[in-house]
Amino acid sequence: MQLIDGKLISEQIKAEIAKEVKLIKEVGGKIPHLAAILVGNDGASETYVAHKVKDCEQVGFTSTLLRFDASITEEMLITEIKKVNANSDIDGLIVQLPIPKHISEAKIIETIDPAKDVDGFHPINMGRMVIGLPSYISATPAGIIELLRRYKIQTAGKNCVVIGRSNIVGKPISNLLAQKSDVGDATVTMCHSRTQNLEEICLRADIIIAALGKPEFVTAAMVKEGAVVIDVGITRLTSDKTKNGFKLVGDVKFNEVAPKCSFITPVPGGVGPMTRVSLLQNTLLSAKKAIYC
Amino acid sequence: MQLIDGKLISEQIKAEIAKEVKLIKEVGGKIPHLAAILVGNDGASETYVAHKVKDCEQVGFTSTLLRFDASITEEMLITEIKKVNANSDIDGLIVQLPIPKHISEAKIIETIDPAKDVDGFHPINMGRMVIGLPSYISATPAGIIELLRRYKIQTAGKNCVVIGRSNIVGKPISNLLAQKSDVGDATVTMCHSRTQNLEEICLRADIIIAALGKPEFVTAAMVKEGAVVIDVGITRLTSDKTKNGFKLVGDVKFNEVAPKCSFITPVPGGVGPMTRVSLLQNTLLSAKKAIYC
Repeated sequence: MQLIDGKLISEQIKAEIAKEVKLIKEVGGKIPHLAAILVGNDGASETYVAHKVKDCEQVGFTSTLLRFDASITEEMLITEIKKVNANSDIDGLIVQLPIPKHISEAKIIETIDPAKDVDGFHPINMGRMVIGLPSYISATPAGIIELLRRYKIQTAGKNCVVIGRSNIVGKPISNLLAQKSDVGDATVTMCHSRTQNLEEICLRADIIIAALGKPEFVTAAMVKEGAVVIDVGITRLTSDKTKNGFKLVGDVKFNEVAPKCSFITPVPGGVGPMTRVSLLQNTLLSAKKAIYC
Repeated sequence: MQLIDGKLISEQIKAEIAKEVKLIKEVGGKIPHLAAILVGNDGASETYVAHKVKDCEQVGFTSTLLRFDASITEEMLITEIKKVNANSDIDGLIVQLPIPKHISEAKIIETIDPAKDVDGFHPINMGRMVIGLPSYISATPAGIIELLRRYKIQTAGKNCVVIGRSNIVGKPISNLLAQKSDVGDATVTMCHSRTQNLEEICLRADIIIAALGKPEFVTAAMVKEGAVVIDVGITRLTSDKTKNGFKLVGDVKFNEVAPKCSFITPVPGGVGPMTRVSLLQNTLLSAKKAIYC
């Protein structure tokens, strides 16, 4: 069993990005610039955005944090997004979700210029991804693909089972793994709450992507010998065994599943760090006009 | 075994649309108006467009056929599309594919106003479909969903195997059947040229969608007793048994597969007529501003 070290890979990628940014600076090129919009004061959102700003600093990107009160109107937020769209110095824009309920998430996402949509949430980026055109791929699926690529895990012709059909993980990763590409060409089965005989389906899988958000859902009885298991879940459970009183748990019962696997991602330190680094990769792609010219 | 009569259902739907158009006319509402762009003189394309125009007449829609010489430049074609986009009387615009090689198909499709993209080929409509937002669903997958709905074929929790991963059939129908909806919630496995053990996978399927474009590819040995088989393929083969010297053949070896099925679509007269009628349905949705306001 080999542990897929997302933390290590993400540090390698960050180092690669930092090196490229240094070269860009030396030749007087465009420094990648990420703008993040944060509405309100949600604790988790504050943390996520702080991480993103810190990641930018670490690789030499410029970052701008735009904060708005939770009472901002949809119209005003749209105006602010349009300002960023029009600002040619900003390459990538993310709006940290969730946003207050009085604002339409779909409308906000569709206001972001697709060429700056480094979260890959705009339907046009999702659509382009599905039909195989260049697009920003959202952070978690992009991170999973990168892990599979760097660990040279063969996907072509493999039976891949994706558990969960969320818009930001299950659906995009299913489409990506099924399509003709270097990390693709898999026979993908998308499973979800209505799936019957899930255990039987999982037992046939060469690769399992667990992304349903139920702690320790995937047990050893569902995994065949030698399978690759990618655990996307991350749930915070209270624990009397840790100093801070909680522990992070994935969708996979790691201790019993790991011995059966050829490769497995741990939680934390697997997919999580890759999600963070994907945003940097997309922002760099944008600054280089690699997706949209 | 019950034959799924796409011809009958499509006639029923056309009658329903015609009735609605009559009501719209009576109250002085907006008559749905489809514009088709045809570039060059490809024989098959001529026929397809002629059918579309005829279908419009049959249900009381207005239609406009815009013909351009095969030598039209990409820029000029884009200008023409923009004129249609700006014409508020036109509800739906299709550009008959294929277009000459010197013109980028992707660019042309992305020029069409998504709100008039009744073929559902624009990436934004594909993306909205995948993430479950209102969108124009392209003609063939929409036709398949409508057949399953009208024959009350249960999809929730069923194992569905889609053979073929084209942008206009395999990918969209896989996404549609997997998603939470009345004709959805299936456990979908998308298979393609790189899939191994296809026969074994198909044998587990409650529903098979054959959309790979290989005549008589699906044999009885691949289909379990009681399965539902939807045949999307349509290939013209020469034949000495027909007057005109050819016959139309699907992706399914109908004679041997049909006896095993609970439901099966014939070729011709199955999915084909539904594809034609889906375009009318999308144009009506556009005239009613049901997808985009």
